[in-house]
Amino acid sequence: MKNAVVLLSGGLDSATVLALARAQGFQCFALSVDYGQRHHSELDAAQRVAMLLGAREHRVISIDLTAFGGSALTDNSIAVPQQPSVGIPLTYVPARNTIMLSLALAWAEVLQAQDVFIGVNAVDYSGYPDCRPAFIEAFEQMANLATKAGVEGKRLSVHAPLLHLSKAEIIQRGLAAGVDYAQTVSCYQADTAGRACGVCDSCRLRRAGFAAAGVADPTHYVNHE
Amino acid sequence: MKNAVVLLSGGLDSATVLALARAQGFQCFALSVDYGQRHHSELDAAQRVAMLLGAREHRVISIDLTAFGGSALTDNSIAVPQQPSVGIPLTYVPARNTIMLSLALAWAEVLQAQDVFIGVNAVDYSGYPDCRPAFIEAFEQMANLATKAGVEGKRLSVHAPLLHLSKAEIIQRGLAAGVDYAQTVSCYQADTAGRACGVCDSCRLRRAGFAAAGVADPTHYVNHE
Repeated sequence: MKNAVVLLSGGLDSATVLALARAQGFQCFALSVDYGQRHHSELDAAQRVAMLLGAREHRVISIDLTAFGGSALTDNSIAVPQQPSVGIPLTYVPARNTIMLSLALAWAEVLQAQDVFIGVNAVDYSGYPDCRPAFIEAFEQMANLATKAGVEGKRLSVHAPLLHLSKAEIIQRGLAAGVDYAQTVSCYQADTAGRACGVCDSCRLRRAGFAAAGVADPTHYVNHE
Repeated sequence: MKNAVVLLSGGLDSATVLALARAQGFQCFALSVDYGQRHHSELDAAQRVAMLLGAREHRVISIDLTAFGGSALTDNSIAVPQQPSVGIPLTYVPARNTIMLSLALAWAEVLQAQDVFIGVNAVDYSGYPDCRPAFIEAFEQMANLATKAGVEGKRLSVHAPLLHLSKAEIIQRGLAAGVDYAQTVSCYQADTAGRACGVCDSCRLRRAGFAAAGVADPTHYVNHE
């Protein structure tokens, strides 16, 4: 079995990616990043999901991006928007995917894994610069110059299997691959029990995805909606 | 004055880079990364150097790369080599420069800085994949796709002014720009007082650099050599 590092936030998208990587026969090393996000229930969800979906190992690495701020997710003085925004959302965390992929690259190199998976999506998150296909391609190209494996001629691949899927399609593929979405937390401001606010961008996209997929929404909402 | 983020380890090379960036008229935000390296005297040196060379601000961000290991610098079970090695040295830390540049990119984005400086060198560290010119170029290209500034058409530059210099040339330029090398710590295994071992790769390169530059070596060695 080939080793792969899978970035796992504990949300809907990354849980789906882990299930898809497993379905492709990879032995998966799940990596979560505690970057100072507003709540830890997402990381609790990552832990559950990693176990339920048969990751070989799950590690959480801490890096305090609140030292830089610049986002509603890493600066408590910036409120999480409750309405859809125009342009790049306030929840965009500067260079987050670059940092996360760099950490995945480091672990991949130590594991001698040539495959890294990330759940970015260019359809729903078109406002995030680091969710665009051109970014993923450029990262892959850079990664192949950055590492020992690259020097030795081993090719590293960055897989973003959700890149061009709608939320409904992601949910359908995840269900087929055995994801229990009740265990995942997507909300930007979930409470300590992992219950979703129902009003942030992430909640809205997720809820609309279940509706479009024609699937009952298993999300635990704060207001029992 | 234009803002720049300067990666500052506390060693000879990055101190020189900070001095050169200041000489070019940048207002410098120095960033050090506490990644679990063997000793903290390097970070103490970074603090001194940032102040002496007039950085506007100095931040230390922590990320525990010992969680991945894979290097003599991040795994205590791997000894720091005392002899020159063939190929990629054991002191190579997987994806380190990628991770550090990603963090610098995040801070640059928050500061709206379009310039990042790093002290990589392709001459003495030819064994490190992430010290090669092609890596720096690929990172710059990726960074311009990763960020909000990139989307808005602002170009980010990754400056590596030491890339093609010998250690002696680096020292000569640094002295001309006012660096006090007695304040810097390059040793891979310096003691808590910042005294250098004199035998690791980094010490050997540094010592040879001072000799080749025809400059007295101000390094504090453990054995008072």
